[in-house]
Amino acid sequence: MSEHNSQQALNYSEENKDGFLNELFDLLRIPSVSADPKFSKDVHEAAKFIKQKLIDAGVDKAEICETAGYPIVYGEKIIDENLPTVLVYGHYDVQPADPYELWDSPPFEPVIKDDRIYARGACDDKGQFYMHVKAFEAMSKTDSLQCNVKFMIEGEEEVGSNNLEIFVKENQEKLKNNVVLISDTSMISMDTPSITAGLRGLSYVEVEVTGPNRDLHSGTYGGAVANPINVLCDMISSLKDENGHITIPGFYDKVEEYSQEYRDTLNKAPFSEEDYKKELDIDAVFGEKGYTTIERIGIRPTLDVNGIWGGYIGEGAKTVLPSKAYAKISMRLVPNQESDEITQLFVNHFNSIAPDYVKVKVTPHHGGESAVVSTDSPAFRAAEKAFKDGWNKKPLPTRDGGSIPIVALFEKELKSDVLLMGFGLDKDAIHSPNESYGVENFFRGIDTIIRFHGHFAKAE
Amino acid sequence: MSEHNSQQALNYSEENKDGFLNELFDLLRIPSVSADPKFSKDVHEAAKFIKQKLIDAGVDKAEICETAGYPIVYGEKIIDENLPTVLVYGHYDVQPADPYELWDSPPFEPVIKDDRIYARGACDDKGQFYMHVKAFEAMSKTDSLQCNVKFMIEGEEEVGSNNLEIFVKENQEKLKNNVVLISDTSMISMDTPSITAGLRGLSYVEVEVTGPNRDLHSGTYGGAVANPINVLCDMISSLKDENGHITIPGFYDKVEEYSQEYRDTLNKAPFSEEDYKKELDIDAVFGEKGYTTIERIGIRPTLDVNGIWGGYIGEGAKTVLPSKAYAKISMRLVPNQESDEITQLFVNHFNSIAPDYVKVKVTPHHGGESAVVSTDSPAFRAAEKAFKDGWNKKPLPTRDGGSIPIVALFEKELKSDVLLMGFGLDKDAIHSPNESYGVENFFRGIDTIIRFHGHFAKAE
Repeated sequence: MSEHNSQQALNYSEENKDGFLNELFDLLRIPSVSADPKFSKDVHEAAKFIKQKLIDAGVDKAEICETAGYPIVYGEKIIDENLPTVLVYGHYDVQPADPYELWDSPPFEPVIKDDRIYARGACDDKGQFYMHVKAFEAMSKTDSLQCNVKFMIEGEEEVGSNNLEIFVKENQEKLKNNVVLISDTSMISMDTPSITAGLRGLSYVEVEVTGPNRDLHSGTYGGAVANPINVLCDMISSLKDENGHITIPGFYDKVEEYSQEYRDTLNKAPFSEEDYKKELDIDAVFGEKGYTTIERIGIRPTLDVNGIWGGYIGEGAKTVLPSKAYAKISMRLVPNQESDEITQLFVNHFNSIAPDYVKVKVTPHHGGESAVVSTDSPAFRAAEKAFKDGWNKKPLPTRDGGSIPIVALFEKELKSDVLLMGFGLDKDAIHSPNESYGVENFFRGIDTIIRFHGHFAKAE
Repeated sequence: MSEHNSQQALNYSEENKDGFLNELFDLLRIPSVSADPKFSKDVHEAAKFIKQKLIDAGVDKAEICETAGYPIVYGEKIIDENLPTVLVYGHYDVQPADPYELWDSPPFEPVIKDDRIYARGACDDKGQFYMHVKAFEAMSKTDSLQCNVKFMIEGEEEVGSNNLEIFVKENQEKLKNNVVLISDTSMISMDTPSITAGLRGLSYVEVEVTGPNRDLHSGTYGGAVANPINVLCDMISSLKDENGHITIPGFYDKVEEYSQEYRDTLNKAPFSEEDYKKELDIDAVFGEKGYTTIERIGIRPTLDVNGIWGGYIGEGAKTVLPSKAYAKISMRLVPNQESDEITQLFVNHFNSIAPDYVKVKVTPHHGGESAVVSTDSPAFRAAEKAFKDGWNKKPLPTRDGGSIPIVALFEKELKSDVLLMGFGLDKDAIHSPNESYGVENFFRGIDTIIRFHGHFAKAE
């Protein structure tokens, strides 16, 4: 019966492909960059756009819920209190698009090339959460909804979802659900569908190193006054040892050491280091000694400088000994490493290693907790079936390196199962110039979501 | 007799102070930044301005000599072939003014505050070379010239004077002189006049470190792919050891070790480390172990990062693992260290320490040779007398940390004595925001230059 229902929705989706794509393009044209205040108007516009699309798709009610930051768009359709409820989470904000000059086409003017959609947010997360809006439309317009559906689409994921936590805590009843369904991750490949069973947490700080109180002539002072850029490089370099091991005291205290057996399963995922290096045009991979690439991304924490700047960075040569140097540094965390605690460890350590000839300031940005998703929940099993239907393959559980801070939040505050059913691919280049998303991924994602609803309804 | 002549010129200078200052302001309003192509028109305008002022001041002929880069302004007045000839060298180009936001008043709108002229180039070198134009005017308008005078004012000093060398080699006869007189350095203080007897050389390179072929998501790849910013920090950090000693093989091979006796004389120059730290607002000085601050600046080479950039440097947080990171690095050199040789040592070393998981590119910018000036030349003795007249003190010989590459060039190509009679002060903040020059320094400089001509005429 539900299979039959699903078929109607699948047909609807098949018949409305062009319309679905055009709507996504309209959404991608809105530069909703949450990190940069100059796009504030656009972020709000994206929220309005989504509210309207939810109404058009058939929700009973949709609302824009204001927060201290950017609003959360909420919508729901309750067909039967006794049926399971799927809460769809997604985010309508996107990463900054710079450096713009590296884009082959303007980031906010979506185009299709070689069956891929090119635009900032094409995959992360507009292209992915919008599949749920269209899957819902297909089911609702064909009266084939088999679960209650709730939508919670936020606008601050790329800057830490700070206000979502308050919203979730204050709306536990409204958000009551049997599973939080999220498409904001990637699969191994089109041939090897996978479901994310774990995510890393994040700690993000900005550091400022101050030497002299003004920029100096590097001839008159060079050699006699500490150069804050050299000092910053020394300090950053000292944060890892020659084995790629992070030197912050206590950093690894809560990091779980996995059994060789578990690591072996993890390493069973198809992975070619040669292809990986070729695709990135690097001669060698590099990471923490003693771990494979899959382990380094999946089960080990890491530290990366995401940005650095100081002194003269214009054309030509300027012999300046600058007053200040800056860096943005983030740490990816694994289960049990708490973001706030790691941030504090970093702040303490960075201050402790600052030599007396400079002053340092550390400003924490947003953080997020890591998460492990049950591979034995009704939702996970329903997802496995949905993939089996659409891809004729059982999806592999994977550990992703990225962070979706709110997964831990949902598990904690809503006591919900969370399902990370992502349809992205590594080559989507999210957070990079020329971000893209496969047209096929978009449509097969919609179908898989429709099938999931059918199986999840029965699974309960 | 010459004292009498000098007096007429000194009076003329006294009577024309306002006009002198207004002219300097007109020159300072021209943003002749040689490092940045977008100011090209202004650099050429500055050259025309100077040619006209030389004519107004009374030269027999003035010309704009084109080069492969920016032109050299040449002017001369030969009163008697048998009299000594003073060749005045200066530069009309200035350092870039950024960061603009740190200026209290616009860099190219000169203002006087607390008897100081604030503008880019106020001291380096417009304010200083223009003293010679006005001193010449004072002597020529009062028929009290006692030496032949030649002017060679270039527009590429801040970017390496590359074309000046060709010009000098091709115009040896035209530039024939008994001393090259340069005001582009500083004195110890108004109470302690000094003459620069040594300058450091310069080697300047730009480095590029490339990791993956595109910016990556630091979650999906962080820990498994080398981050070019982290790697650049490691490489820069490794260029100096814990004693501030530069680790480039062969870097110190030609560095002279001075006798304790010589070092003691050097350290006799009045210097208060407390005042120095207070003025720069630092808690401690830092430099090569085993040397005093005066020695670190005067007789030791050094390495400074003048600029660094890579990744996301906008507002907020972006979790990017960038494809590239860059730095501008300069080395100050001491006598016997040849700029080209040191640059090559750097290039070889930097490439040799590059790990196999990144690609590095090193691009040399301009360089310059160090110089030692005789403290026993007729010119130096005449300068001592000139300071004695005007300041009632014998000037101290000092070793400056800065570089004026062409000093070595003049000594080599023109076989000339060079005299570095600078009237700047450390607090002038050249190359920094809010560069300034004391109004008193400007006028006392003009007087001292006039007196120098008188003594130098007799010294021959």
